[in-house]
Amino acid sequence: MTKQFLVEQIKAKQSYLCVGLDTDIEKLPAHLPKNKDGVIAFNKAIIDATADYCVSYKINTAFYESQGLAGWEAMEATLAHIPSTHFTIADAKRGDIGNTSAQYAKTFFEVLPFDAITVAPYMGKDSIEPFLAYSNKFTIVLGLTSNAGSANFEQQKLDNGQYLFESVIEQVASWSSPEQLMFVVGATKPEDFVGIRKIIPNHFLLVPGVGAQGGSLEEVTKYGKNQDTGLLVNASRAIIFASSQENFAEEAAKQAKQYAAEMKALLS
Amino acid sequence: MTKQFLVEQIKAKQSYLCVGLDTDIEKLPAHLPKNKDGVIAFNKAIIDATADYCVSYKINTAFYESQGLAGWEAMEATLAHIPSTHFTIADAKRGDIGNTSAQYAKTFFEVLPFDAITVAPYMGKDSIEPFLAYSNKFTIVLGLTSNAGSANFEQQKLDNGQYLFESVIEQVASWSSPEQLMFVVGATKPEDFVGIRKIIPNHFLLVPGVGAQGGSLEEVTKYGKNQDTGLLVNASRAIIFASSQENFAEEAAKQAKQYAAEMKALLS
Repeated sequence: MTKQFLVEQIKAKQSYLCVGLDTDIEKLPAHLPKNKDGVIAFNKAIIDATADYCVSYKINTAFYESQGLAGWEAMEATLAHIPSTHFTIADAKRGDIGNTSAQYAKTFFEVLPFDAITVAPYMGKDSIEPFLAYSNKFTIVLGLTSNAGSANFEQQKLDNGQYLFESVIEQVASWSSPEQLMFVVGATKPEDFVGIRKIIPNHFLLVPGVGAQGGSLEEVTKYGKNQDTGLLVNASRAIIFASSQENFAEEAAKQAKQYAAEMKALLS
Repeated sequence: MTKQFLVEQIKAKQSYLCVGLDTDIEKLPAHLPKNKDGVIAFNKAIIDATADYCVSYKINTAFYESQGLAGWEAMEATLAHIPSTHFTIADAKRGDIGNTSAQYAKTFFEVLPFDAITVAPYMGKDSIEPFLAYSNKFTIVLGLTSNAGSANFEQQKLDNGQYLFESVIEQVASWSSPEQLMFVVGATKPEDFVGIRKIIPNHFLLVPGVGAQGGSLEEVTKYGKNQDTGLLVNASRAIIFASSQENFAEEAAKQAKQYAAEMKALLS
């Protein structure tokens, strides 16, 4: 999917919602089996119920890998069920030396044909380039994450006065264009978006941490939006586990619809 | 496996060699099928041929994931074939927010019962703690890697005078003990081991970059060794792809034997 197509979808729907399929098998509604078939049935129902309100789905690979082979089958079936109108993200946070990152890129861009993958930047340029080599795909690099641990390293001050996350965003942005590069920026300190937008005015930001993690959609939008909207705001548990009963899909749809309504109001 | 058992194995064999099973299906000897059965047959032959000369095997998960379901079956079968005397490492470089890292820990410590996993530190303490929660397993955190890209972030100077990799090693070491924590330190600049050993005199270091990437075993050992030896030196391609003919296992054994002989000489 191109950036232009994504921007058109956002404009048409007035939504920049990404639904996170962090499908924890232990949290499936009781009437569904705790196995591959249960996960697939759950995800398909969530996708069908929420597709009108979102522009993207993010599959958190950890929750599938932890089910072994059955999990990979569930991931394949889930990805295949997502409409081609929706931007698909493998939230995999991979990154290794070049020949190994090339294998990860093959996994999540070819074997599983996602539109995008999240990548960890610690190992530097040659660990990210194999993903960027796919010019028709998006590489989403961790900038500033929404967890407490972001204070340990991401928010350390460098001797040039920048925070590490600022250096990461600035350097990585120089390696590619907004047509194939995005950044993860967490929602927990929305005022950080001001400084980040000075470095990367034109890139899309994938924003976790709204909802279960407590970030404010209004502030994220106020400080993070650009002329393309430029935001994909993710909510996972707050939507997919809104109900643990048989009405889980209807309740997920209600939550997604509410996010979309808030987004429409914030964009107008 | 406990640290004590690993140290005993190293003492008994006078080897601290880790064989990296970066089994690229495209590089299999021509007489083997380029599928799951070929990968499993190749890995079993490599393991059988090299087990006497090494104390550890490292499975690079990327090369298996890129084969989809068949790759995960090959990873399971390979892990099951490694003798219980050998320390098994999932070289997966995972790391995410707590609930997600917990899923990755389950994957590589329970579903696939590895002794250790490599973890990327960018997201900080709460992204690493779920791995450390397995007190009978090892978490191997990236410190200073052997690729050119380590200059981009790992070797940036902080405003406290440390390099980022030094801050990572110092902080992470304060979160756990050498009984369950190791670090990745690349071999390309062996003099860096001197400063690192001042921070962590007692932790094991997993050292990639000897062999195909050009690091010197003699210098790594000189600067990196501690009273337990404290090193696992990995070689992947230089051993497993020593020959692309039917004699690949014999040639791999020759290479592993030569590494082990050099190690024995360096330890005495």
